[in-house]
Amino acid sequence: MSHVAADLFATHRSMLDDAVEAVGSRGYFSAFPESPSPRVYGETAAADGAAAFDALLGQEFPVAAPGANGAVATEKSPYGKALDVRYPRVTADGVPDLVAAAGAGLVAWRDAGIEARVGVGLEVLKRLHARVFELANAVMHTSGQAFVMAFQAGGAHALDRALESIAYAYAEMTRVPTTAIWEKPGRDASIRMEKTFTVVPRGLALVVGCNTFPTWNSWPGLFASLVTGNPVIVKPHPGAVLPLAITVQACQEVLAEAGFDPHLVTLAAEDPADGLAAVLAVRPEVKLIDFTGGNAFGDWLEDNARQASVFTEKSGVNTVVLDSTDSFKQMCFNLAFSLALYTGQMCTAPQNLFLPARGIETDDGHKSVDDVVAGLAGALTKLVGDDARAVELLGGVVNEGVLERLERAGSGDGKVAIESRQVTHPAFADAVVRTPAVVTLEVSDRSTYESETFGPVAYLIKTEGTAESIEVFRRTATEHGAMTASVYTTDESVVASMRSAALDAGVALSENLTGQIFVNQSAAFSDFHGTGANPAANATFTDGAFVASRFRFIQSRRHI
Amino acid sequence: MSHVAADLFATHRSMLDDAVEAVGSRGYFSAFPESPSPRVYGETAAADGAAAFDALLGQEFPVAAPGANGAVATEKSPYGKALDVRYPRVTADGVPDLVAAAGAGLVAWRDAGIEARVGVGLEVLKRLHARVFELANAVMHTSGQAFVMAFQAGGAHALDRALESIAYAYAEMTRVPTTAIWEKPGRDASIRMEKTFTVVPRGLALVVGCNTFPTWNSWPGLFASLVTGNPVIVKPHPGAVLPLAITVQACQEVLAEAGFDPHLVTLAAEDPADGLAAVLAVRPEVKLIDFTGGNAFGDWLEDNARQASVFTEKSGVNTVVLDSTDSFKQMCFNLAFSLALYTGQMCTAPQNLFLPARGIETDDGHKSVDDVVAGLAGALTKLVGDDARAVELLGGVVNEGVLERLERAGSGDGKVAIESRQVTHPAFADAVVRTPAVVTLEVSDRSTYESETFGPVAYLIKTEGTAESIEVFRRTATEHGAMTASVYTTDESVVASMRSAALDAGVALSENLTGQIFVNQSAAFSDFHGTGANPAANATFTDGAFVASRFRFIQSRRHI
Repeated sequence: MSHVAADLFATHRSMLDDAVEAVGSRGYFSAFPESPSPRVYGETAAADGAAAFDALLGQEFPVAAPGANGAVATEKSPYGKALDVRYPRVTADGVPDLVAAAGAGLVAWRDAGIEARVGVGLEVLKRLHARVFELANAVMHTSGQAFVMAFQAGGAHALDRALESIAYAYAEMTRVPTTAIWEKPGRDASIRMEKTFTVVPRGLALVVGCNTFPTWNSWPGLFASLVTGNPVIVKPHPGAVLPLAITVQACQEVLAEAGFDPHLVTLAAEDPADGLAAVLAVRPEVKLIDFTGGNAFGDWLEDNARQASVFTEKSGVNTVVLDSTDSFKQMCFNLAFSLALYTGQMCTAPQNLFLPARGIETDDGHKSVDDVVAGLAGALTKLVGDDARAVELLGGVVNEGVLERLERAGSGDGKVAIESRQVTHPAFADAVVRTPAVVTLEVSDRSTYESETFGPVAYLIKTEGTAESIEVFRRTATEHGAMTASVYTTDESVVASMRSAALDAGVALSENLTGQIFVNQSAAFSDFHGTGANPAANATFTDGAFVASRFRFIQSRRHI
Repeated sequence: MSHVAADLFATHRSMLDDAVEAVGSRGYFSAFPESPSPRVYGETAAADGAAAFDALLGQEFPVAAPGANGAVATEKSPYGKALDVRYPRVTADGVPDLVAAAGAGLVAWRDAGIEARVGVGLEVLKRLHARVFELANAVMHTSGQAFVMAFQAGGAHALDRALESIAYAYAEMTRVPTTAIWEKPGRDASIRMEKTFTVVPRGLALVVGCNTFPTWNSWPGLFASLVTGNPVIVKPHPGAVLPLAITVQACQEVLAEAGFDPHLVTLAAEDPADGLAAVLAVRPEVKLIDFTGGNAFGDWLEDNARQASVFTEKSGVNTVVLDSTDSFKQMCFNLAFSLALYTGQMCTAPQNLFLPARGIETDDGHKSVDDVVAGLAGALTKLVGDDARAVELLGGVVNEGVLERLERAGSGDGKVAIESRQVTHPAFADAVVRTPAVVTLEVSDRSTYESETFGPVAYLIKTEGTAESIEVFRRTATEHGAMTASVYTTDESVVASMRSAALDAGVALSENLTGQIFVNQSAAFSDFHGTGANPAANATFTDGAFVASRFRFIQSRRHI
């Protein structure tokens, strides 16, 4: 092991140990403070990060990309800020060179061993953390997330998720010792053998990023593949390149300092028309693929990238079952927050809210469907009624598709019960900001609510009663997938039915969230994100299955 | 948990704990004695087992098989003993009923929890162990293995492999607690949540057995799937049904006693013309498939059973590199034993023996290629020169295909250096028994040695020198796969080159085996069988990847 890499492992050892312990206990843990407060990060951190970000704009981004030809600038800030960052452009013609360069360092990286690779991975996290304000700006202006969310989900929480993934990979690689003595008792003498066990990577890894969570969704797969020995090609979404370009830059920097080939992690930026992911995904050298995005390409990858293990997070119909509550106000607040947070552009945002047509019982008396609409509308007004406050929760609309779906809301089945509203951003005049719309539907309007309407459109769907609500949840989540589910009830038997349905459908369940925890959010080291048990995702952040097949143990044995 | 299942878990807890410890340390461990001696198993055990086996012959095997229609009797003993055991026949028409019956008990089995399922699995192993002599006869007369080998590989060692797989599955399921408290510190008060984590199976599992190792190769997948909550449909090879019929019977017996649906494990016997595995493998309910057998159907499964996670063990070109030795006699003995054991019908048997055309240096002086042939021939004569002793090592020829390949040996490239010999079995006049043939080839005869010649044909291939031998090993194993590799050398730099090539090709390596350990054999709890890192197999017995994707964790969370 290089001295540098050995030192890195020793430096970060206690953070790693804490993370390994946390994923086992599933208790609260975080290694990267989520508050962007100057008290935590220092008085100048925010301004320094913003300046570092601004310095990248309008420039050629300094990252090595073998096989690249020319440059692309494909990002557009939902806040209207001019970005114009140019990245080396990789096309199908450049793929052979890229693949060759990615593979060149594989053997040395493999032979460096577990601790060297994990040390490098952890050091990259430290470097990214040192640039967390710069990253937050990059995530904000590519995804449209509001600044604090970009800092948290795109920075601190993403780092925690990456650390969790490294911790899982480290635990998996060290379940078997590197050397073992095997001694079989015999009649005369025992038979003694020395065995070695070496972690060997699968091959090249490909990470395909998404527009909305370029870091949070890409880092777990990226770092799991890298520390298990696989060179990683990062293909960002053309709309959110910068956060991953910074990531690749940090990786290359640490790899080079530790004496490894920097091209073990490479950036493959493309023109959106190039269809580069599909070219890379079927290369025989690519053995691991991590993808976050829509069902169409996710399903295509699962069907066509036969030479690789494919980990996907796609989309589904996230469900809330409203049965009853002892905190009507808090329930409405919690739901409204979940609908508004990042304009409903989270793969975990609730879409289908089922409730009995006759209404629900609450601490504030019986509430009809109209009363529930009024409760939600009131909570939304408090949260996003004032433009200046609203933008900090909503962020910006990430792309035209979201806007189009919002504009179509209510044009088919059902009627718009809560209208979307245009919000003016106090700092960015050209920002595209909208509040969520709520449409009421009948349970028979299946064609409308059985597919994902990605963006700020939620459906309030009237059923015969809670039993039907749960049944429709079970069916729709099983058939169409779901990243999240939630129930509000004061009846433990309803909790039990909903838990049973959630097990059947393979969806994580949140029960009676009325405080500062929201169904859209999952906590690293404790909550699994996605389950791999329904069509919305074939993997989870993070379990053993997410890391175990990224490498193999190869042994030798000899008599001693 | 049922009281019965709770008791079973408690009863077998210490064996489980020992197994979990062993897979972590990779030291020697065995829970099931491998010696069939009366001193170990009792004076009447062998006779009782033989009688139990004989009582099954010519009968309808008593096992429930939903969807079955009529019966099949498809087995033929390589020893010529009449079997005529009839099994319920499942055809494509019966598959819907079979699948429905298999799934009926899933929810209760899931809800019973980890310890109940593991307790049942371990109790099945105990029941199978109680029938180990009966099983040994069943394995002997279907696979052709000699009795002691059938007792060990088909009985005791297979039970160890099954226990190893249950231990891995148990460790994987218990990496996450069933309940956790998550408490996030806050400015005013902390946020406290209770979380539950439930193991949820993937769906139905299908196990496709092979002719040569019906238990050893099928049990790891079967028990891993079962204890993680998946109902298992067992589709035996038509030539080796009985060992798996006994297995299914034991499973059904314990499941019923513990209050579960016995159809959680079912037998799907077929007429060879029915092609039942292909029908079952693409059923949408089937989410896990374990297969051992040839490349053609293994590759077909990987390509077509898209709805399932597929674990395959196929075939490859197992390689020995001969460079030099300090124990020429022992080397020849060890190699001859590996070639003769079960007539080379092991997926791990060596096929390609590379050596320098100029010969090798040994403790007995320089040995030319002809000297090495003579050494091997001498060792084979000692091992299999006497018919009565030979049959205990060779066993019988499992099927016509093996015989045909043996008869074709030397008809193409190369010349037969050691002839195969017909052996007369002292106890079974109709037994088909052959000694191995060795054919010498040039390194240019690629078309002959680059594919598997399953059975007792080995190639002694002349190269320019050890560097070329290693290079050809690296290339052939990478392109065509290998289950095993072995090297003989007195030069540590050759060991290092060979280890490096083995890491590149993803093959386990045995070094200088000159004693009672043979390259064909892998020890449960310590040696990985297959690697999943080359085309011969996409999985291994057993690592985390073999078990981790057989279930998912589904969580719930609520404030407390």
